[in-house]
Amino acid sequence: MISTKTFASIITIGDELLIGQVIDTNSAFIAQELNKIGIAVKHRVAVGDEWEDIWQALDEESKHSKIIIITGGLGPTADDITKPLLCKYFNGKMMMHTETLEYITNLFETVLKRPMIDRNRKQAEVPDVCTVLKNEVGTAPGMMFEKNDVLFFALPGVPHEMKWIMNNHIISMLSKKFVGEFIEHRTLLTAGVGESFLAEKLINFESLLPLYIKLAYLPNYGMVRLRLTAFGNNKEALSNEINQLFQNLKNLTQEFLITDEDEPLEVIVGNLLKQNNKTVATAESCTGGYIAHLISSVAGSSAYYEGSVVSYSYAAKENILDVDRNILETYGAVSEQTVNAMVKGILKKMNTNYAIAVSGIMGPGGGTVDKPVGTVWIAVASENKIIAKVLRFRFDRIKNIQLTAANALLMLRELIVDKP
Amino acid sequence: MISTKTFASIITIGDELLIGQVIDTNSAFIAQELNKIGIAVKHRVAVGDEWEDIWQALDEESKHSKIIIITGGLGPTADDITKPLLCKYFNGKMMMHTETLEYITNLFETVLKRPMIDRNRKQAEVPDVCTVLKNEVGTAPGMMFEKNDVLFFALPGVPHEMKWIMNNHIISMLSKKFVGEFIEHRTLLTAGVGESFLAEKLINFESLLPLYIKLAYLPNYGMVRLRLTAFGNNKEALSNEINQLFQNLKNLTQEFLITDEDEPLEVIVGNLLKQNNKTVATAESCTGGYIAHLISSVAGSSAYYEGSVVSYSYAAKENILDVDRNILETYGAVSEQTVNAMVKGILKKMNTNYAIAVSGIMGPGGGTVDKPVGTVWIAVASENKIIAKVLRFRFDRIKNIQLTAANALLMLRELIVDKP
Repeated sequence: MISTKTFASIITIGDELLIGQVIDTNSAFIAQELNKIGIAVKHRVAVGDEWEDIWQALDEESKHSKIIIITGGLGPTADDITKPLLCKYFNGKMMMHTETLEYITNLFETVLKRPMIDRNRKQAEVPDVCTVLKNEVGTAPGMMFEKNDVLFFALPGVPHEMKWIMNNHIISMLSKKFVGEFIEHRTLLTAGVGESFLAEKLINFESLLPLYIKLAYLPNYGMVRLRLTAFGNNKEALSNEINQLFQNLKNLTQEFLITDEDEPLEVIVGNLLKQNNKTVATAESCTGGYIAHLISSVAGSSAYYEGSVVSYSYAAKENILDVDRNILETYGAVSEQTVNAMVKGILKKMNTNYAIAVSGIMGPGGGTVDKPVGTVWIAVASENKIIAKVLRFRFDRIKNIQLTAANALLMLRELIVDKP
Repeated sequence: MISTKTFASIITIGDELLIGQVIDTNSAFIAQELNKIGIAVKHRVAVGDEWEDIWQALDEESKHSKIIIITGGLGPTADDITKPLLCKYFNGKMMMHTETLEYITNLFETVLKRPMIDRNRKQAEVPDVCTVLKNEVGTAPGMMFEKNDVLFFALPGVPHEMKWIMNNHIISMLSKKFVGEFIEHRTLLTAGVGESFLAEKLINFESLLPLYIKLAYLPNYGMVRLRLTAFGNNKEALSNEINQLFQNLKNLTQEFLITDEDEPLEVIVGNLLKQNNKTVATAESCTGGYIAHLISSVAGSSAYYEGSVVSYSYAAKENILDVDRNILETYGAVSEQTVNAMVKGILKKMNTNYAIAVSGIMGPGGGTVDKPVGTVWIAVASENKIIAKVLRFRFDRIKNIQLTAANALLMLRELIVDKP
């Protein structure tokens, strides 16, 4: 099997990306969607709102990529220079795109109900050398250009507009044009083992991989994801081969395996609860609702998630979760006794099959000699079992919160799987 | 005033960045820290774990940048090729770095308490042509190289390790070397006005800006941030000038102005509560703890935040928030009556000065003809006033949750500012 790849580049435009004011989430989405239709991203470049830098990026990227996806700089303000630049780059003239103008006019009249000004009208202008990609969720249309056999797509930087145009125009267009190329990914998640130790275990497996299949290690939150990626032209043969190898990988990592899907812990736990027809609730102190947010961000989670009590204060722990004031005063809010009382309280209040409770010191302030910043107690419970554990993290507030949530979900998963 | 700039490039390495498996948050942090010491980022490039692509990126970026920050690919596994590549690129030989080896050995013996294997020992090897940048929060040391007057820094991709080395080595080193260059940002936030309308209002202001001061528009969540950025060599003159212009900008946008700092809504609301010595609690249905998470992610929020009841189910609304079952059955969970009852319930339960309650349908399922996906009721309350509002969003689940949270915080801010 010979691997041939169509390469793409992503160019994101905007000073906000270069001063760190905004985190680029668009590129990840674009890369995922391209991969699904067999197109590999070779380069991602971020440039500022500077004529020369954008121009140069277009020149450079079209040297090695057949597909260039550009986002940002299509808005109605003076710092948005992508459209005039592309017009010049492709030797076009600006013209009014009637259909887009009608759409924008209608949007202002019937949905936004704001007066439309010249500047809005200008959004309907496009270079006469482009193909317009209709944007039904915003005012800036997408554009497609072609030059020396390279396709250029320009999209707004607003994430939901970019996604809409990718999904409704670009992916179907590209999948017809570049038929017959495939990229397959398989990802599994391990816990309780270091990256180095895993690599030792997999040294033979890795040395026997063909050139068109790669193994990657992705450590995070004290867990390690392993990803196999394969490129090729024969979808069936490729799928068979990667499935076989993935099965071997699962066997080799069996004792640490959490899931063989590329899915976050809240989805794993959610699926387990759904399959077993069980419910869960959470009582959170130090994570302040983050565990609730993770669980409820999954579509359909209302089937198994009852809710949370975020008890930041003693009073909330006492009044809503019925934690005995004596326990709080004797052992402190960050203690085994308190999380045990919290988990019992929430189980009863929400009347669920399972519950999670956490209490800790996330920093930067609040640490003591006995309980330094990063100390956290986690309890998970079913109707007839409670498991509590203390952990110590040594990072910043946000990272400590994320690690606490990940470990709490991991403990709940174990409790469900072990079926106490 | 003439603007001279030292340019930097950021190269992030890892296939996970090109297949969209991981969102790059490192670059934003690096850019912010460099900006603070007057260094502008010109380019951000992401490349895969491919020898040639990394090599080429080093060549390309060093053409226009004096500082190259490289992250990723320093781990102990076979897909981590950055270290051998840099060794070759700078014509070095690998050698054992004794101090790092001692540190790693000690880490395994006393903190991790796991056996140390050869692979871990290898992490202490570095090219003999680099300066080692000690990493006290991980096992991969940072490295500095110099070639043709360009400085190259290689850092691990794990965010807290990258941050530690930036903060403890790189920033102090660069700020001594590139003294006398300054970048100043000023950002304000507006609400209730479109980007186009703002741009019309600011057309004169913008046309009178000197070349070394730029205005940028950053729309998000139905709000628009405006940012002024100035470059120059005379810190005092630059500060005076940008402060004067920023004051003009504030005057011009006064009626829509929410804050004149680059800070999120949860910080704005938190500061208002702290200043007024008031407290708040939240009752969340559709946002599932996201508002609680935002408020509590701010360090020190326990001073004004009591907690949240995330009431996903009818039972939770009834049993914990004391919402009358009749209200739920007559008007439904997504109604003015229900959010009013929720906000009263949480105010009483948590005994706070202010409260927020939200209930809506975030999608993808659960919509009806009367209450389509995206319908959300928000109520904010003080001891003697309740304001409730219905909003309709038309995005995906995550975006709808974020928009609901932003609007709820905005409404609370208004209630506090208006001092009812």
